[in-house]
Amino acid sequence: MNSSKKKPGQRELAVILLSGGMDSCVVTAVAAQKYELACLHLNYGQRTENKELQSFQKICDHYDVKHRLIVDVNYLKQIGGSSLTDHSIDVPEAALHSKEIPNTYVPFRNANILSIAVSWAEVIKAAKIFVGAVAEDSSGYPDTRREFYDAFEKTIETGTTLGGNLKIETPIINLKKSEIVKLGMQLKAPFELSWSCYKSSESACGECDSCALRLRGFSQAGFKDPIAYASNIFSSETFV
Amino acid sequence: MNSSKKKPGQRELAVILLSGGMDSCVVTAVAAQKYELACLHLNYGQRTENKELQSFQKICDHYDVKHRLIVDVNYLKQIGGSSLTDHSIDVPEAALHSKEIPNTYVPFRNANILSIAVSWAEVIKAAKIFVGAVAEDSSGYPDTRREFYDAFEKTIETGTTLGGNLKIETPIINLKKSEIVKLGMQLKAPFELSWSCYKSSESACGECDSCALRLRGFSQAGFKDPIAYASNIFSSETFV
Repeated sequence: MNSSKKKPGQRELAVILLSGGMDSCVVTAVAAQKYELACLHLNYGQRTENKELQSFQKICDHYDVKHRLIVDVNYLKQIGGSSLTDHSIDVPEAALHSKEIPNTYVPFRNANILSIAVSWAEVIKAAKIFVGAVAEDSSGYPDTRREFYDAFEKTIETGTTLGGNLKIETPIINLKKSEIVKLGMQLKAPFELSWSCYKSSESACGECDSCALRLRGFSQAGFKDPIAYASNIFSSETFV
Repeated sequence: MNSSKKKPGQRELAVILLSGGMDSCVVTAVAAQKYELACLHLNYGQRTENKELQSFQKICDHYDVKHRLIVDVNYLKQIGGSSLTDHSIDVPEAALHSKEIPNTYVPFRNANILSIAVSWAEVIKAAKIFVGAVAEDSSGYPDTRREFYDAFEKTIETGTTLGGNLKIETPIINLKKSEIVKLGMQLKAPFELSWSCYKSSESACGECDSCALRLRGFSQAGFKDPIAYASNIFSSETFV
């Protein structure tokens, strides 16, 4: 089903890394404009595994996605070193202006996820991998910069049978959260189905880093986030 | 426990990708000369999972390895596309002069494995990752060439908090199988504990690609392989 074999009118396949968060939700909307979607979800023992998986399935249903792959990468929990997978480490409260890499960082997580995506892409003959990485709003995670994806493309070129035919698309990497919200609104991304909170309650907590970034993004874009929050520490603040 | 923090006389840590095969056995012997070993083993639903795991533990015992990590990457089976993980595809008989990539190839397997190794190395502060990749004798797998590891080092530089401090060592990548045997013999590598066969019988089959390469290597090096074989299709041939 690669470009040389596909039938006339048939769309090329793209693998989407779909966590179920707002960023990957918008990236799915971007990819859906041009590609047939193959959505990949990773369970890695994160606190919010069930919430994210529900969002993944709902977003896939929304886009009528036939190719779905859910992969258990619980070994990241074995390796530890992060509050997202090691439940003995507390999730930090929002600290948006900190320059330190927060303890929600799972070492080299995105390379692990991308490697799986490439293996699948090679088997199903996908032309692209879409990733919802965001450089500016990512709290300094080192594997969310385009430089990393460029280097990873080189490993795909040298380490697969695909050569340079499989590319990594990072359509929102240089966008601010508010711009991602605007783009998603424009493409009718189903934000109401997405889950970004680092905790796993009925409603999003509104207080963790991820909620803080999301709420600020919607606020700055001039839209109301359609999901429910337990609290909203930013509702009365002015953002710079 | 990185170089700046380690106590006087304390060795730096190296993560060894130890499948339990003869190549990784020799690489372990190489690394043991200079580093404290942290051995990583992957179960990926291969036919020889139990055999390889036994060899891993025996080789670790031999070198008194305290840091051992066994990771289940059965998702490679989910992704499929290889006779090593998809048991409905037959393992091919030896075809050493074929230029085609054999169906034992798991797409991008080594990148998946390396990503796990890097995550672990970052957590335990290892200085090196040792990989038993062999370019010439690897039946054309695209992810066993140094070019691929150079590209992967660049992703480590850009995608971790380690910068350029974690390097991938491939000490046997340019060696012929016979040279690997000689190196292992010189370093007293415990070949008798290793398992290379693609099948999972009591004795190695002596007929699959992996047995063929191993037997030819020992033959050309002028040593007798200490493990038992059910048959040896190369015992009466002259190799070129």
